[in-house]
Amino acid sequence: MSQMLVEIREQPTALERTLNEEFPPIEDLRRRLDVQRPRLIMLAARGTSDNAALFGRYLLEITTGIPVSLAAPSIFTLYKAPINLDGVLVVAISQSGESTDTNYVLERAREQGALTIGITNEPASTMARIAEHTFLVRAGKEKSVAATKTYTGQLLMLYLLAYALNAPIRRDDLERIPASASLALELEDGMSARAERYRFMEHTVVIGRGLNYSNAFEFSLKMMETCYVVAERFSSADLLHGPIAMVGQAFPAFVFAPSGVTWPGIRETIDKLDQVGAETTIITDQSNADALSRVNRSFCIPAELDDMFTPIPYIIPMQLFTALLAEQKGLNPDHPRTLTKVTRTL
Amino acid sequence: MSQMLVEIREQPTALERTLNEEFPPIEDLRRRLDVQRPRLIMLAARGTSDNAALFGRYLLEITTGIPVSLAAPSIFTLYKAPINLDGVLVVAISQSGESTDTNYVLERAREQGALTIGITNEPASTMARIAEHTFLVRAGKEKSVAATKTYTGQLLMLYLLAYALNAPIRRDDLERIPASASLALELEDGMSARAERYRFMEHTVVIGRGLNYSNAFEFSLKMMETCYVVAERFSSADLLHGPIAMVGQAFPAFVFAPSGVTWPGIRETIDKLDQVGAETTIITDQSNADALSRVNRSFCIPAELDDMFTPIPYIIPMQLFTALLAEQKGLNPDHPRTLTKVTRTL
Repeated sequence: MSQMLVEIREQPTALERTLNEEFPPIEDLRRRLDVQRPRLIMLAARGTSDNAALFGRYLLEITTGIPVSLAAPSIFTLYKAPINLDGVLVVAISQSGESTDTNYVLERAREQGALTIGITNEPASTMARIAEHTFLVRAGKEKSVAATKTYTGQLLMLYLLAYALNAPIRRDDLERIPASASLALELEDGMSARAERYRFMEHTVVIGRGLNYSNAFEFSLKMMETCYVVAERFSSADLLHGPIAMVGQAFPAFVFAPSGVTWPGIRETIDKLDQVGAETTIITDQSNADALSRVNRSFCIPAELDDMFTPIPYIIPMQLFTALLAEQKGLNPDHPRTLTKVTRTL
Repeated sequence: MSQMLVEIREQPTALERTLNEEFPPIEDLRRRLDVQRPRLIMLAARGTSDNAALFGRYLLEITTGIPVSLAAPSIFTLYKAPINLDGVLVVAISQSGESTDTNYVLERAREQGALTIGITNEPASTMARIAEHTFLVRAGKEKSVAATKTYTGQLLMLYLLAYALNAPIRRDDLERIPASASLALELEDGMSARAERYRFMEHTVVIGRGLNYSNAFEFSLKMMETCYVVAERFSSADLLHGPIAMVGQAFPAFVFAPSGVTWPGIRETIDKLDQVGAETTIITDQSNADALSRVNRSFCIPAELDDMFTPIPYIIPMQLFTALLAEQKGLNPDHPRTLTKVTRTL
């Protein structure tokens, strides 16, 4: 069994640990942010952590009203631009804590007097040393090159950060997340047989919107890394602004489809995909009866979930799918060609 | 001949018109911004205009030091989040000025008292009515569904906006841009024969960094829209953080490779692409001798260009390439399947 699969299964336990151990320091941060509310939040990350940052961008803007920007590291590392970070909260995210450019942004931010937070899985990392406040994902050592449990752990830390910024998120809501991850893992039954169907899939497009936009990035990244599938990713709106033209008969599409505010637009996109003959599979839960009645193929979490808390359970079946598709393709998802666990770029 | 090709050729004239007619109102804006400097710039757009916004994000942060955020329209349109836009400059970009969600963001911003700017090609559009300041791209009516001259016109308007924000950009620098576009158009000679080689290309990856990151998005969007090629796009750093795994023997890659601060990282990426047997083609100019000596295939603008002013000339040969590749594939680039000129999404 691949290490990736082992780590996917560890997620409910890991999430519970993160919540229990990081809640007290988050309460401290909450008190500080209450008197020192940032005017802007800047998130800096690469790879899977950058997908988590993309989730953070939506979650934090939606729940706090503070504008959020995703840092473009090269502006700091290569162009050496002196960005005005006065009153800005800079949050860097890295599994290893050793991402060179992310740490560079964090260092410059701290020098400028910005409030800095590091989110990492490695307590002894460079990031943990640089950041004023470090929050630990506590997922346990991640050995597979393809990140899974650290992604969901980073998402959870971002919910905690939203809580610290006085978002309308209660501890109760967060305590239900590990259980929803367990329910998502139930989809492992029969997943290998389902993955076999995609043995020869060479390209695909993944659609997400709002809080699940980041999952479109993360699922497609997992497929690129471990299955070598050329996996595109778009919001449903962006797809319709051009890329839909490339989608023709039998083009495989995966669509994150929670109920709630994003569903009407997602439904319209599914209709469009149907019209051009694409093969659409949705990722949803039992609360979206309309979606389940419209689409033949689905990964459905056996629970009724609020859009706000779908991203963690929704990515899990697609992590399973990816790990098992890699096996079907005769690839080792723990060691993708060309990659190593820690990537350093400037 | 396709309308797309006609419009590509119009770019030097269109750029000159934009510069001449929009410079005076930009001087007025400059005086206003001098006393009312924004704490944050938020750019809102979709499709090709969103690629221009991505350029604006880099250009404005690099040259003004003001943090820049790319708006996520769904946060306004679907989640109805009350983002604090006090002291923010909101810039919406749309060729038609009729992009529903972009205009929605602009309206909410204006209601909140943010300074609003609209950049559009259509003086009688909804956007021109909503925005406090409207700047016209003045590219002339764009008939082809695939946007070309409005993209470069939007880039030019963003240089003008940077100028208005006191960036170290002189009018002289901007006045050289139309001539660089003319030089880029010289690459049309022989382009059809070059494009033929890619008749059966089904997927590709386009790499850009910094100021040319947006060109990676725009060139790949053009290929998706008009050639139905599954075209990925990454910064050189992001490619190395995972997606490189999907790139194997003979995988076609296109790399924007100006000289300057981004070149060392781009060079490293090209070396990595070579190691995995990919086929790399670069877009560069005569100032990057190192690039030209390393790579067999290039589109080289016959001029020596400063990184800062490469984005407009660099996209032009790739617009030509796309229009002619569409023809080689028996497709009409002016009317991609599924698309219409104005896309309305929420």
